[in-house]
Amino acid sequence: MNEFDFIEHLRGQTNSRKHSTRVLAGIGDDASIISESSGRDLIVTTDLLIEGVDFHRGATPARLLGHKALAVSLSDIAAMGARPFWSFLAVGMSREEWNTNFKDEFYEGFFALADHYGVTLAGGDISETKHDIVIDSIVLGEAASGRAVKRSGARPGDQIYVTGNLGGAAAGLKLIELGARVSEPGAIATGSTDTAESRSDDDAIQTLLLRQLLPQPRVGWGIVLGEQQLASAMIDLSDGLSSDLNHLCKESNVGATIDAAAIPLDEEVRQLCGRRALDPLALALHGGEDFELLFTVNPENVSRLPKRVDGVAISRIGEVADHKSIEIKEHNRTWDLRPGGFEHFPSRASISP
Amino acid sequence: MNEFDFIEHLRGQTNSRKHSTRVLAGIGDDASIISESSGRDLIVTTDLLIEGVDFHRGATPARLLGHKALAVSLSDIAAMGARPFWSFLAVGMSREEWNTNFKDEFYEGFFALADHYGVTLAGGDISETKHDIVIDSIVLGEAASGRAVKRSGARPGDQIYVTGNLGGAAAGLKLIELGARVSEPGAIATGSTDTAESRSDDDAIQTLLLRQLLPQPRVGWGIVLGEQQLASAMIDLSDGLSSDLNHLCKESNVGATIDAAAIPLDEEVRQLCGRRALDPLALALHGGEDFELLFTVNPENVSRLPKRVDGVAISRIGEVADHKSIEIKEHNRTWDLRPGGFEHFPSRASISP
Repeated sequence: MNEFDFIEHLRGQTNSRKHSTRVLAGIGDDASIISESSGRDLIVTTDLLIEGVDFHRGATPARLLGHKALAVSLSDIAAMGARPFWSFLAVGMSREEWNTNFKDEFYEGFFALADHYGVTLAGGDISETKHDIVIDSIVLGEAASGRAVKRSGARPGDQIYVTGNLGGAAAGLKLIELGARVSEPGAIATGSTDTAESRSDDDAIQTLLLRQLLPQPRVGWGIVLGEQQLASAMIDLSDGLSSDLNHLCKESNVGATIDAAAIPLDEEVRQLCGRRALDPLALALHGGEDFELLFTVNPENVSRLPKRVDGVAISRIGEVADHKSIEIKEHNRTWDLRPGGFEHFPSRASISP
Repeated sequence: MNEFDFIEHLRGQTNSRKHSTRVLAGIGDDASIISESSGRDLIVTTDLLIEGVDFHRGATPARLLGHKALAVSLSDIAAMGARPFWSFLAVGMSREEWNTNFKDEFYEGFFALADHYGVTLAGGDISETKHDIVIDSIVLGEAASGRAVKRSGARPGDQIYVTGNLGGAAAGLKLIELGARVSEPGAIATGSTDTAESRSDDDAIQTLLLRQLLPQPRVGWGIVLGEQQLASAMIDLSDGLSSDLNHLCKESNVGATIDAAAIPLDEEVRQLCGRRALDPLALALHGGEDFELLFTVNPENVSRLPKRVDGVAISRIGEVADHKSIEIKEHNRTWDLRPGGFEHFPSRASISP
């Protein structure tokens, strides 16, 4: 049983109970929706970040981790078309770590992003751990009653969009695994002995490392798509386009056709992959952690979509279909897009022959 | 800097910001209060439980851990005088643990308690860890506008009460450290070769183990004390009476006088400690994790206090004073009660000479 099956099992357990007080959406979406009965719905999300699994201490400056802890939860709130207001942080670390600058720099990075979006740190918990750093990031937001966007609202004929560009975060992770490290802010370029090409590669590497370590949640787009009732369904790209589109289609009980050529790739991914015989499309499809928004729009609403929000454009990458499969068209062939994104606990079937 | 100093530092950082949207109480209480502007306030608490720190896997059946994860957060909601409604669970475990029965039994224990109080599992997260089990338990509740009970409302002359009996959870922890283990439900007593005294000790040991492993949050008392506006200040006993009373007095800017003889001790603690030359009072004062409620009552309201709620009685243990110290009277001497409860990260000053 993989984690998605187990979550589905928990959802069944929860739905079979009678006392689901005012829960409009619970397990199985980017965040939960609770009716506040004052014309507003409360949106709640929680995300665990575990050292050695979700981040590697040596490759992750504490400030960037503080940013990312909040960013991943803001991205979930955005994926509900809601506005974030309050954050709660549960942080565990070893006694050794407690006596370093880690916690100060972590909260510095957290507050920089929180201030940017007017989010208040309203509570939390601090605990000791025996080994790794553990962070649980909780964000609460609000949407006007009934305006929150679920994964389940996509209908055949809806157009499929993504914000920004894809593949950069996965490329950044690969670079980290190869030993690349983010430059300290203010570090000076090494200068005249570099060729123009290696300087340009260095810049691309730094950009991709930051795509992985300093993700930018699409808070503005989330609010616009929710409040103006533009998106029929939405999810954020955390596991990878192939997996997240699968989640959305499953919840909506639809399929999709994706146009490979329309998937917007991070320019730096093209630049570096070209020289290293890596496939940028595979990174974009299965890589995950881009924290862009994937959403569907009824054709009637397409003309109301803004071109950009906060400087970020969108791309139409396909269409919702009434067959149940997810197909991708590349050049003149069409193949089934199987979920190939991140899983914490792959089911045994998928790892044994 | 210990964790309480650091939390105070974070609170200062948060309070210096201008965008604290509708946060009526944030960092520094049992839970946070957010105004819902519909005649209700939202109450939010989060609690980390880390394997090897907050529980020991070998001594903690997964069902009991599932119960305790929810119980500690329900206790925080009770300490705010609020009613719990929704739970969110972030759970991390290793791949090895994933393939055991742990998760099924954990959620079984969780749902048994959740169902008892009509609490809905409304969301969460599941992640892999490299080593230990990690649980973050989040509970949301509600109180009528302005009715939530903070730590800061105690006034000189208020009477100090606790629910139930103290010391049992700490005694249970000591027994676990000595190798005692909880009997599986349905296990049969070993029979006739036991003396009456050893049988009675066995029963006491099992009771104390369950005080540690299966804490009963005082949900009913919390609701009564909050909704009927009986408590002027409240906190739950998680760190230990000496520490938690200190937190309450600090927030209320008052002192207190406690009558040692009035502190209600778990009967089994007396029974076992008597024979082992342990001090039951020290366990009650500094032990922690009893998850009883400590609250203050204006003398005018004392007559309105119910004798019992859900079968649990209360004891008057002292009085709020206008001096700033916390004194305890035992026999005919009076001494300062210094916080001696649990800290994850003791300040260096207190552990070095």
